[in-house]
Amino acid sequence: MTPHFVTFSCDGRQSYGLHTGAGVIDLGRDFPQWPTLREVIAADALKQVFKAAAGRAADHPLDAVTLDIPVPNPEKIICIGVNFPDRNAEYKDGQDAPPYPSMFIRFPGSFVGHGADLIRPPESEKLDYEGEVVIVIGKGGRRIARADAYDHIAGLSLCNEGTIRDWVRHAKFNVTQGKNWDRSGAMGPWLVPFTHPAQLDDIKLETRVNGEVRQHDRTSRMMFDFRYIVNYVSTFTTLVPGDVIVCGTPTGAGARFDPPIWLKPGDVIEVEAEGIGILRNGVADE
Amino acid sequence: MTPHFVTFSCDGRQSYGLHTGAGVIDLGRDFPQWPTLREVIAADALKQVFKAAAGRAADHPLDAVTLDIPVPNPEKIICIGVNFPDRNAEYKDGQDAPPYPSMFIRFPGSFVGHGADLIRPPESEKLDYEGEVVIVIGKGGRRIARADAYDHIAGLSLCNEGTIRDWVRHAKFNVTQGKNWDRSGAMGPWLVPFTHPAQLDDIKLETRVNGEVRQHDRTSRMMFDFRYIVNYVSTFTTLVPGDVIVCGTPTGAGARFDPPIWLKPGDVIEVEAEGIGILRNGVADE
Repeated sequence: MTPHFVTFSCDGRQSYGLHTGAGVIDLGRDFPQWPTLREVIAADALKQVFKAAAGRAADHPLDAVTLDIPVPNPEKIICIGVNFPDRNAEYKDGQDAPPYPSMFIRFPGSFVGHGADLIRPPESEKLDYEGEVVIVIGKGGRRIARADAYDHIAGLSLCNEGTIRDWVRHAKFNVTQGKNWDRSGAMGPWLVPFTHPAQLDDIKLETRVNGEVRQHDRTSRMMFDFRYIVNYVSTFTTLVPGDVIVCGTPTGAGARFDPPIWLKPGDVIEVEAEGIGILRNGVADE
Repeated sequence: MTPHFVTFSCDGRQSYGLHTGAGVIDLGRDFPQWPTLREVIAADALKQVFKAAAGRAADHPLDAVTLDIPVPNPEKIICIGVNFPDRNAEYKDGQDAPPYPSMFIRFPGSFVGHGADLIRPPESEKLDYEGEVVIVIGKGGRRIARADAYDHIAGLSLCNEGTIRDWVRHAKFNVTQGKNWDRSGAMGPWLVPFTHPAQLDDIKLETRVNGEVRQHDRTSRMMFDFRYIVNYVSTFTTLVPGDVIVCGTPTGAGARFDPPIWLKPGDVIEVEAEGIGILRNGVADE
């Protein structure tokens, strides 16, 4: 069975463990030397933590826990923009596809975990979704070769890279402020260990809003594949264990409809990828 | 006397304390409850730490310590782009000055402390300087009103927002990768407590390379002033104690000369602001 590592809060305390489908096995208290999954990953100890769960029943039923983003305190959350073939054309600016990936940073506070509502702020009603695959770095490094890139990925997750669209265009350059509204996106539901290239090379990625398919593509069509991303990012910055890279969204976000279709309170967004799972979130006004 | 709080490394251990001019008083070991200046700031305890230094001589001579960036592990380092009147014109793209500030994020590893060399990587010789004033958040908050903004600033510092210019233009949007090369910028030399509006409202900011003035302006001419920046940023993200905001550079970076003048090994860059100090760094090849 594929391990589903989760970070969760229960009774005012954050811990990590395994999602059993019916509940959560609390493993954080077994390993006080590793306060979060970031330290577990840094110690290359996902297998050891998984083994500690063998034969154990869930400690908490699902309705007693809040799922948090899988790595709650990464040093970096790097997001790749414009990474599927038809996304560049969507910008309608007459520019060719760029030779290098666009990249921006998000803070952990801009994400909620699986099951929580995305928050639409009073400043804008242009809340939009973007379904994406997430890689979490295991072994750190600088100038990691393409051929070695997969050896540096510890696990996979999903992201709804929720965006306040009008604030993305506030500035001359950069999308920072439209991408960092508190609790405007989501990450989860869990971390799946990465052990085989087939988990990334050509998987289906789909986003649904209230059951309707809005985004649908395969990772084999990415303009900048996972190996390239690890290589390129590590050219300028040293990747460390637990670093999160959000790898880009297919065409079909709400902004691309005419007229645009923004998320509204009560909507349910599902981001699904083969072998990883389904990240499901509602929407609520602040 | 103005307190000069520093974060430093000595004998393989990082601590914080006060810079006396001749050396460093080591105060980190007096306050184990606050591992770094970030926690001191969160506890609103800069005054308490300063008092503990009264009458004490330096514990370490300057040549025994390495100065690190003042807040070594902030949750956020937010940089403001294009914030002086002539900077927008420098882009020569025919666009009007933007209605909102441009913003990007840097990781702590992209900075060295005072006295260390900026690193020019083998991938590019287009290393450039940008002198800037840094504000460090004290009391956190969301949607902080302009009128209250100064109450949320704990201290001031300086930044050489070193940039690999050609990598800034790699992408369709965003400057992330040109702004985040390991050890390509600097922050320091220290943190000065912020206690009076005159410390920010109209101070001189100057950048010199090998003694030659390259950038020279006053903060009163900023397009987006410090109060506005705190208000605007906290509209979308919750600011927390220790958050760092790098507030934008005057005209005159090396990229704006014809032909451009890039930094090279052996150069010495000084960023100076009235009442804060001088941040001095060399340049070395990786």
